[in-house]
Amino acid sequence: MNNLPKPVTPLLTADAVILVNNKRDIVLIRRKNPPFQGDLALPGGFVDVGETVEKACVREAKEETNINVKIIKLIGPFSDPKRDPRGHTVSIAFLCEPKTKNEKPKAKDDAAALEIIPLSKITSLKLAFDHMEIIKSSGILNNLN
Amino acid sequence: MNNLPKPVTPLLTADAVILVNNKRDIVLIRRKNPPFQGDLALPGGFVDVGETVEKACVREAKEETNINVKIIKLIGPFSDPKRDPRGHTVSIAFLCEPKTKNEKPKAKDDAAALEIIPLSKITSLKLAFDHMEIIKSSGILNNLN
Repeated sequence: MNNLPKPVTPLLTADAVILVNNKRDIVLIRRKNPPFQGDLALPGGFVDVGETVEKACVREAKEETNINVKIIKLIGPFSDPKRDPRGHTVSIAFLCEPKTKNEKPKAKDDAAALEIIPLSKITSLKLAFDHMEIIKSSGILNNLN
Repeated sequence: MNNLPKPVTPLLTADAVILVNNKRDIVLIRRKNPPFQGDLALPGGFVDVGETVEKACVREAKEETNINVKIIKLIGPFSDPKRDPRGHTVSIAFLCEPKTKNEKPKAKDDAAALEIIPLSKITSLKLAFDHMEIIKSSGILNNLN
């Protein structure tokens, strides 16, 4: 079309804040790989060329937690250049819930283990990347006592 | 850190829906280059590695329209793989307004010309990419008579 060099832009990921058990608990994974190996994190991963960010979110949630999710709402883009020590990665985060009542959470793929944590306990944890900021931005902690 | 290949993800852009004249008008550019050469489009462009999507939006708005903008709200990510004929590009769109009352709109950089269009005329236009969808998603057309 023209001869401009192909632009280089940050890598793109999608992350899922998955609420379960009548929205009282959140599904987190223990990271199998660096960075933040062994830390708790939101399920998520890189967006493939050819898929929407919403499909990437749903796919990564399934791959890492075995849960088929539906998206409730967009939380937002998180794009601080220092949020991933490997390099600049922009995450689009979504609030999700299980698609059916019959989902069976199970750690898979990049997840070493899966943990289902009450929302009231979240802020006492150390999470990977800026995932605590993502969870706070989602608004799900606003109405806790 | 580990030996996994570097992931390939869609390119990332930021687009600005800029409201002016007491939020009655929107600032569009005539595209100087393909694709959609000569069509009207939102100001915007590729996100640089090392800058946030918000900063990219503000920078591109300035580069193309000469307007220093502030972001009012996130409109959302737009990631249909077919939205850009050059390849898969994900845009993060923001609703913006001029930072001061003294901004001087002027076509620059990738913009062949700049047009300030009343919101009431927008839906009769043909816009590049999915920019009409972005404008409609922003909600700014909801209260027009």
